[in-house]
Amino acid sequence: MTQRVAIIGAGPSGIAQLRAFDSAKKSGREIPEIVCFEKQDDWGGQWNYNWRSGIDKYGEPVHSSMYRNLWSNGPKEALEFAEYTFDEHFGRPISSYPPRAVLWDYINGRAEKSDVKKHVRFATVVRWVDFDESTNLFTVTTEDLKTGQTETSEFDHVIVGSGHFSFPNVPDFKGIETFPGELMHAHDFRGAERLADKDVLLIGASYSAEDIGVQSFKMGARSVTYSYRSGPMGFDWPEGIEELPLIDRFEGSTAYFSNGMSRSFDTVILCTGYLHHYPFLPSDLALDSPNNVYPDTLYRGVVSENNDSLYYLGAQDQWFTFNMFDAQAWYVRDIILGELTIPSPSEQRESIDAWLERFNAIETAEDEVKFQADYIRDLIELTDYPMFDLDEVTRTFMAWKTDKKKNILTYRDKVYRSVMTGTMADKHHTPWLSELDDSMERYVSA
Amino acid sequence: MTQRVAIIGAGPSGIAQLRAFDSAKKSGREIPEIVCFEKQDDWGGQWNYNWRSGIDKYGEPVHSSMYRNLWSNGPKEALEFAEYTFDEHFGRPISSYPPRAVLWDYINGRAEKSDVKKHVRFATVVRWVDFDESTNLFTVTTEDLKTGQTETSEFDHVIVGSGHFSFPNVPDFKGIETFPGELMHAHDFRGAERLADKDVLLIGASYSAEDIGVQSFKMGARSVTYSYRSGPMGFDWPEGIEELPLIDRFEGSTAYFSNGMSRSFDTVILCTGYLHHYPFLPSDLALDSPNNVYPDTLYRGVVSENNDSLYYLGAQDQWFTFNMFDAQAWYVRDIILGELTIPSPSEQRESIDAWLERFNAIETAEDEVKFQADYIRDLIELTDYPMFDLDEVTRTFMAWKTDKKKNILTYRDKVYRSVMTGTMADKHHTPWLSELDDSMERYVSA
Ligand SMILES: Cc1cc2nc3c(=O)[nH]c(=O)nc-3n(C[C@H](O)[C@H](O)[C@H](O)COP(=O)(O)OP(=O)(O)OC[C@H]3O[C@@H](n4cnc5c(N)ncnc54)[C@H](O)[C@@H]3O)c2cc1C
Ligand SMILES: Cc1cc2nc3c(=O)[nH]c(=O)nc-3n(C[C@H](O)[C@H](O)[C@H](O)COP(=O)(O)OP(=O)(O)OC[C@H]3O[C@@H](n4cnc5c(N)ncnc54)[C@H](O)[C@@H]3O)c2cc1C
Ligand SMILES: NC(=O)c1ccc[n+]([C@@H]2O[C@H](COP(=O)([O-])OP(=O)(O)OC[C@H]3O[C@@H](n4cnc5c(N)ncnc54)[C@H](OP(=O)(O)O)[C@@H]3O)[C@@H](O)[C@H]2O)c1
Ligand SMILES: NC(=O)c1ccc[n+]([C@@H]2O[C@H](COP(=O)([O-])OP(=O)(O)OC[C@H]3O[C@@H](n4cnc5c(N)ncnc54)[C@H](OP(=O)(O)O)[C@@H]3O)[C@@H](O)[C@H]2O)c1
Repeated sequence: MTQRVAIIGAGPSGIAQLRAFDSAKKSGREIPEIVCFEKQDDWGGQWNYNWRSGIDKYGEPVHSSMYRNLWSNGPKEALEFAEYTFDEHFGRPISSYPPRAVLWDYINGRAEKSDVKKHVRFATVVRWVDFDESTNLFTVTTEDLKTGQTETSEFDHVIVGSGHFSFPNVPDFKGIETFPGELMHAHDFRGAERLADKDVLLIGASYSAEDIGVQSFKMGARSVTYSYRSGPMGFDWPEGIEELPLIDRFEGSTAYFSNGMSRSFDTVILCTGYLHHYPFLPSDLALDSPNNVYPDTLYRGVVSENNDSLYYLGAQDQWFTFNMFDAQAWYVRDIILGELTIPSPSEQRESIDAWLERFNAIETAEDEVKFQADYIRDLIELTDYPMFDLDEVTRTFMAWKTDKKKNILTYRDKVYRSVMTGTMADKHHTPWLSELDDSMERYVSA
Repeated sequence: MTQRVAIIGAGPSGIAQLRAFDSAKKSGREIPEIVCFEKQDDWGGQWNYNWRSGIDKYGEPVHSSMYRNLWSNGPKEALEFAEYTFDEHFGRPISSYPPRAVLWDYINGRAEKSDVKKHVRFATVVRWVDFDESTNLFTVTTEDLKTGQTETSEFDHVIVGSGHFSFPNVPDFKGIETFPGELMHAHDFRGAERLADKDVLLIGASYSAEDIGVQSFKMGARSVTYSYRSGPMGFDWPEGIEELPLIDRFEGSTAYFSNGMSRSFDTVILCTGYLHHYPFLPSDLALDSPNNVYPDTLYRGVVSENNDSLYYLGAQDQWFTFNMFDAQAWYVRDIILGELTIPSPSEQRESIDAWLERFNAIETAEDEVKFQADYIRDLIELTDYPMFDLDEVTRTFMAWKTDKKKNILTYRDKVYRSVMTGTMADKHHTPWLSELDDSMERYVSA
């Protein structure tokens, strides 16, 4: 009997899995029956922008955390698909930090090129997954959000590609309930235009804080204050941006910092990260991890230690993104096709432990990028996914970090060379700081 | 074997059910094993205020739609429990329109007085419910949100008390994605203080629109504009508040109305109501209804037509609230205790159709209140819940409507007489329009 495979989510990870099977099929291999469930009306995951925040039009939590003004925060040369290049998609060099709509177009372009849309059931949410030890089958219960009809069907394999930057981590701060101004998590942030002339506080010291703060500055915020827990980001901030330690408490619109300072704010944005949250999975199957580059309990970063037929894509914190998801998807495909085998539980554990040991020894950002590059190399070596120069991408990441250090306001004007095609990126027609139109039309206009 | 009953939610409805069983037990009757699952850390449902919006601290949709400044919008004399009066709780007359915290205290007071907290599993969300035709049992899958542990157990009866004002209805409007200002649904609104000096647009013409608009006015909004679909609310608005027809489109911060007018806004609040949404129920068990006073497919407004062991509390649109939930809970209790029987499917249908016929003939608000009063009377006559003067409460509702018509800014200063105790309410020490402190402490201060 044909095997049945369920993919949960049609973001970059789910699409990578669809494309992996499609590529096997094109090379003459027989592939299982595939059903991909996607709760949104379209694919692209985070890259599928939603003006709504909180709850979507179907009553489901809004998935995307992206905002109108979002541009890639890493060079596109680090995320390029090894088997569908930017050159192939755009037909000419483009800049290194495209806005969201342009990257969505690229993701969509590859997906449309392969014949995979027929596998996707859009506007269909996975409600619950169960595993039956006696039959070795999963029952997957889904709801068609347009009709409300629920349905249960059986699968041999389940691939979780639901992302882990959608359920905000919303910590409490003493007195925060008395803050009268605009208060939200980064997940619900949709644009910085309205922060002009405002005093803005961002809690957190990672990518969301950094970028939303800089967006606010770009849009004319009166002041931008960051509040960090572990340590400051330490960029050479322009006048008007400042980093302070953690909030001790709020009293109305005044925030008191742990160093004794206090300040009044109009807007508070919690940039405090996201939860691994899988409301459709029983606890023995649900990944439980902080956001890091090697979540425990996943063999080779994808196979659930508790169940050889359950896989996670993109569960890692992400330096590499699209091409890492590809590497994972090709590997999972070959397991399902029976071309690769999963070792015994104790061997899985040994492998995980070995990676965790190295993970725990990571000291610098560079170590972490190299770690993730090695992780990807390890996977690609096992499949026919095109190997690419991971060391060169690591160097690109380091150049990126240096450029950001030099000037956090202009780093997106820099260009890098593709390791896939050798093409040098083109400078965008307008410096990022003065570009106020983030649309695809504007981007491709000469 | 003892029967097992699952109650989903410990809001006013779920608590009513707990209290109904408790009251039977105190009168010497044997009661089933009861487990109430409540996803929040505390009970009170909507009345349990949450400063967060969107997603809560456990990664679940925030339940409460209430805001800091919320006061009862109907006279408390219309919602009073027939078996736990305001006099009993507060020991002295209080005003007719208490703020949220005061009503939470009242709900909590009754609940604490009966010995029911032991039945509630707090911070536990119901993930999925299945019914097995062969055993006639429900399997209820829950997750302990503090530990992440999921668990499945079997029940003879399931009572849904999860409310239906928590999943916002968020319609699309042409161009709304270009609106650069603050944009939210009423569900995510937490306070009007920050709307001082702002031009505020509220879409919708029901209670949320009305009250959030008036709150904005109270807090000094520069202008309040309502946009209605079916018809205006038609109050005698003070200068600064105006009603316009439906939005045709947005272009940036400008809204164009269907009458050709256009205006610029700082803030848009969608007061467009809520969805009946039961993500934990298969479609044959999930109620599918607009928000109205007689949802189809519920026999006597509570028993699922598809399953005699599944009940809904508070599924109606609500003129009456707490005491209606009581009437329903007492009735459901007596069915489960075997003291009342559910008629055949065709008799159920006949009864539903008869009510629907009357429902469809409703023309005025007064008709609707009388309809709901009759519905409640019909239930109370079947159980030992104390009957109360429903006609007099209907008159109180009519007086309330007249008072609102007279002055939408001062109606909350009016007082009414309790039909339970005959006590006349006391005037609040401060007129609502100048009362800026909504706390319990302030309210009870002499
Ligand atoms: C604010 C933000 C900015 C980012 N910027 C960048 C960037 O500049 N460059 C970069 O490379 N990466 C960026 N990322 C990282 C981003 O996570 C990845 O690029 C990528 O989107 C991850 O792909 P994914 O498919 O694993 O998950 P997602 O993109 O999150 O997609 C998951 C999909 O699963 C669906 N889904 C979830 N639950 C269910 C369910 N129960 N049933 C059915 N469907 C479900 C969702 O609707 C969604 O379509 C950013 C992330 C965030 C949050
Ligand atoms: C903004 C607003 C203002 C209102 N103002 C008034 C007023 O002034 N006067 C008045 O009488 N009524 C008012 N109401 C009506 C209100 O709905 C009722 O007063 C009452 O709260 C309804 O009680 P309930 O128990 O049916 O639902 P809720 O109060 O909504 O409680 C449902 C409970 O179920 C829990 N729950 C939901 N899903 C799950 C799950 N999957 N697992 C576990 N637990 C779950 C929730 O956490 C919640 O505690 C207002 C409603 C809103 C939205
Ligand atoms: N394209 C773009 O421009 C863009 C923009 C935003 C985000 N992103 C992407 O989105 C993903 C998520 O990034 P993220 O920044 O949202 O999450 P993140 O990288 O996980 O960072 C979470 C931050 O929250 C802080 N934090 C957590 N709990 C806290 C608490 N209780 N008090 C104070 N601080 C707390 C953490 O501090 P500690 O360090 O102390 O733990 C950390 O700084 C990343 O992949 C990122 O690349 C991209
Ligand atoms: N205590 C308080 O002060 C307070 C405050 C707020 C709410 N509440 C309670 O909360 C509950 C919910 O009230 P609610 O006002 O949120 O919901 P509601 O009573 O269901 O009203 C929904 C409103 O949204 C409008 N609407 C829906 N879709 C629309 C669309 N596409 N375009 C334009 N308008 C649209 C409806 O218009 P149509 O008439 O055209 O359908 C209606 O006016 C009630 O029980 C209420 O008493 C109480």
